[in-house]
Order: sequence, then structure tokens, then C-alpha cells
Amino acid sequence: MFDIAVIGAGPAGYSAAIQARKRQKSVVVIGQNTGWLSRAQSVANYPGLPDISGEALLSAMRSQAENLGAQMLPGVIHQILPMGESFSLSLGADFIEAKRVILCTGAKQPRLLPGEQALLGHGVSYCGTCDGMLYRGRCVAVIAQGPEAVGEANFLAGLCREVTYFGKPDDALDSRITVCGDRPEAILGESQVKGLRAGGEERPFDGIFIFREATALSTLLPGLDTEGPFLRVDRQMRTSIPGVFAAGDCTGQPFQVAKAVGEGCVAALCAAQEIR
Amino acid sequence: MFDIAVIGAGPAGYSAAIQARKRQKSVVVIGQNTGWLSRAQSVANYPGLPDISGEALLSAMRSQAENLGAQMLPGVIHQILPMGESFSLSLGADFIEAKRVILCTGAKQPRLLPGEQALLGHGVSYCGTCDGMLYRGRCVAVIAQGPEAVGEANFLAGLCREVTYFGKPDDALDSRITVCGDRPEAILGESQVKGLRAGGEERPFDGIFIFREATALSTLLPGLDTEGPFLRVDRQMRTSIPGVFAAGDCTGQPFQVAKAVGEGCVAALCAAQEIR
Repeated sequence: MFDIAVIGAGPAGYSAAIQARKRQKSVVVIGQNTGWLSRAQSVANYPGLPDISGEALLSAMRSQAENLGAQMLPGVIHQILPMGESFSLSLGADFIEAKRVILCTGAKQPRLLPGEQALLGHGVSYCGTCDGMLYRGRCVAVIAQGPEAVGEANFLAGLCREVTYFGKPDDALDSRITVCGDRPEAILGESQVKGLRAGGEERPFDGIFIFREATALSTLLPGLDTEGPFLRVDRQMRTSIPGVFAAGDCTGQPFQVAKAVGEGCVAALCAAQEIR
Repeated sequence: MFDIAVIGAGPAGYSAAIQARKRQKSVVVIGQNTGWLSRAQSVANYPGLPDISGEALLSAMRSQAENLGAQMLPGVIHQILPMGESFSLSLGADFIEAKRVILCTGAKQPRLLPGEQALLGHGVSYCGTCDGMLYRGRCVAVIAQGPEAVGEANFLAGLCREVTYFGKPDDALDSRITVCGDRPEAILGESQVKGLRAGGEERPFDGIFIFREATALSTLLPGLDTEGPFLRVDRQMRTSIPGVFAAGDCTGQPFQVAKAVGEGCVAALCAAQEIR
């Protein structure tokens, strides 16, 4: 059981981890930074560090958090379950327990496919390792939009009769997998997945596995109050769900490292105070 | 006329100045940092710069703001007058005009003496250069709690019949000045200053000049909504007075550099947007 789980490895997440460790709270940061900052050639407006590259800034913050004892976990959290006094976070087939959660998931929300939310758990899955056995000997589609797609598709190839991979060809893919460049458009079926429409064509599948860089907030933790596409928070960075905080770009503009770092700090200190 | 005037030279103020310059707004930072941060041996929880001294961190932020074109002015603002579309800030005998104001005045509020607020402008003054002539040939007290006290007392010594200086002895003080170590307790008088109670003793004075590091917010700009001792702000760092923003420790806990920097950034970007 961690005191604090931080979802998202950007400036807000690292700042939260640094502050949490300074308050002697155990903390895990889950995610891999693939956002705009990692590609910024120069960040000139972060106070104290003029003209640093985005990658160097991220790396400095990450090392600082690690040196203070924060744990780092790559991967994607698919669901956060409130368990009364704590939260259970599903990471692939594993579960992580934490007393408080800080969402630092960035500005970019994945766009769900039509039918995806309604059929989640009814043929739509975000985790091959967890749900693959349900599709043993059957035909599945893999929608590849995140770094875990190749590994998960290969795992499914060992179980399923047929795996169709909607994404870019990759040399690391199992030879039993069929790659298809068509763009997925909608998931078909009413109470159970029947297939996928991609490139204008409807194809039958028994199951559909979707792998993205991040989980949509509405799926991750239903019931969070929003303001437009962003999470509603108060000045202590509390969301509408007790015990869940948010910080950084996911709380709205301006999308600035300084703002993210400030909000991560406030969220972590408030979370730490609640735990005490 | 500046686009933005920042009151307070700490992390919130420098961050605001940096962001304002990145939006091509003219900006002046008024004040001298004498707060806790300048005396911190090591700041370990500012993301990106582990184990830097408070002074080095402040100096890095200050240079960054200056290199981007922010102007720096030492001194104490005594009053901010809303002028419709802009603000007039009194700095000694000068006035600075600005379209927007960001208050970054820190957590510490000067404690006013009993009688001070009521008698301000009726024998109590914060500016020798401005009001000294009113006391030519008369007896005044100087209450010395800030860096400008010595210079202002010397100026008054050239005008007044008697200057009594309540503060620590200083070699730079004019020899005509009487230094008194008694602690000022209350300003006496009903509609006009009659004297000062200090060290339990009541002494007659015609005028009382008070020099502090900062002006109390209630005097600086009356009518600001507060929450306890702190300024009430929204998520865009707007105070209750249109065109006036606040950032950093003056908006409340946690008193952290990361929070100050984040709030300064948000305040400046919101102010810049209003000016456009």
C-alpha cells in the first residue's frame, strides 16, 4: 500500500512526488512521459532554469524524485476503484493500492471510439494479460495506439485463433499476427462486441483490445466533475471525488511547466495532510 | 505606463515577470527580497534544481526575468490607486502607472500600531520625501522597521526641529537625530496625531513617520477580499478587485517556492490576456 499514487510522469507528477517524499509519504509515479514537453527543444520560462531542453528538465525532475525515494512504474492504469479508505489501481494484470491518488494525466484526452464505452467489459478490453484467456481460440482485433500494443498483441497471438493488428507494422510482432493499416472507426455490437468498422468496412471479431498511452478519465474513474475537457478542482487541487486530487494540464490552461509544478506541490501537500 | 506592475520580489513575482515578458508585456518588479527564502541554506524541493541555496535560486530567477527585459525597482509601494483603466502606485514621492497589478507580497503582514490606520494622513505618514515639508520646524518620530528608515530620517533631520528615531542605532544616521530603543506601542490622538506611546511612556509628536519593509495590504489597496490573513483569489489568481491579481504566499499555504512560481505564472498570463 502506497500513501500516494501519482498517475502521469510529467512536471506535475514529479513535483507531487518530490513534495510527498519531503513529507515522508511513500509514493509511486505511474506512466511514461510522451507529452509535448519531452519534445520541446528549449523551455525558456521555467523560473530558475532558463534555456533548458524539455527532456533535460523532465530528467532533472525525475532524478530528483527518484533520489528522494519515489518509485517509478511505466505502464498505463486502466481503472481506479475507490475502496472506502483507499484506492485500487489496475495496472495490466496487477493491482496497486494507495491511500490517495493524484491525477497528472496531461491535457490530451484519448478520443474513445463509438461503442467503446458501452461495450467495455463486453468484448472490449484494455488488457490482454488480464482478459486474453476469455478469447482463447477466438478472433480478436488489437487497436494499437500505445507503447504496450506490440507486447500485448504477441501475448494474444499465443492464445487466440486470429489476431488482427490495427496499427503500424512492427518487426517485433509475432508472425501469426495480421497487420492492417485501416483506421478503426467504430466498435459494433449491442450488448456484446460483434466486430469493428475500419476503413469503411465492417469486420467480425469476438473481442477488441485497445492499447493507448493513457486511459480516458471517464473510464479511469467515472464520476469526476469536469469543466469542458478539464477536471474541476478547488484551490487545494481536490477533485469532486474525496481522496482524489489533480494537477497540471489536466486541470486546464495555461499549459505551463510552472503551473504544473505548483499544482503538483499543492496536491501532494494536501494529500499528505489528509493521510496524517 | 507599464502593462504589469508586480509588487514583491520573490519567486511568485519573478515568475510573473518571466511569463509577462514571454507575452511581450512590459513589466516592473517592485521590492527587495528579504523573506525567508533568501536565508534558506538549501531548498531541496524545487523541481529541477535540487539542493540549491535560497539566495542562488532567487538570484537565478531574478537574472532570468532581467535578461528577458523585466525592470526591477527597489523600494516600498505605499498605496495603489485604481484609476479606471489603470492603476497609480505611489513609490516614495514618485508614481508608477500600470494597466494590471500582481500582488506577490509574501505571507508576512506588518502589524499596524493601534491608531495608525485611523490617523494615516492626519499626522501618520509612510513617506518622508512626500510629507516632510508639512513638518518643517516641528517635532517628529521615525519608526524604523525597514531599509528606507535611515535615509528618510536623515532627510527629515534637515527639515524638522527634532527627529526621534525609534530603532537600532546606525552610524549612517544624521547627528541631529535622537535614537530611542523603546518599542513603539500606539499612536496617540483622535483626529490628529498628538504623540506616541513607546516603552510605556507617552511622548508628544507633531508627526509620525513609519518605514517598513512592506505596506499592510489593507492600507496598500483597501477593499481586497481576504480569507483569514490571506488574499482570496480564484483559479486565475484574480483578487476581488478587477485588474488586481495575487500570487505566492500572500494567497495562503502551502508556503512553497513551487506553488509561488505556479501562481505567478498563472496570474501573469491571465493579466496579459486581459490587456490584449
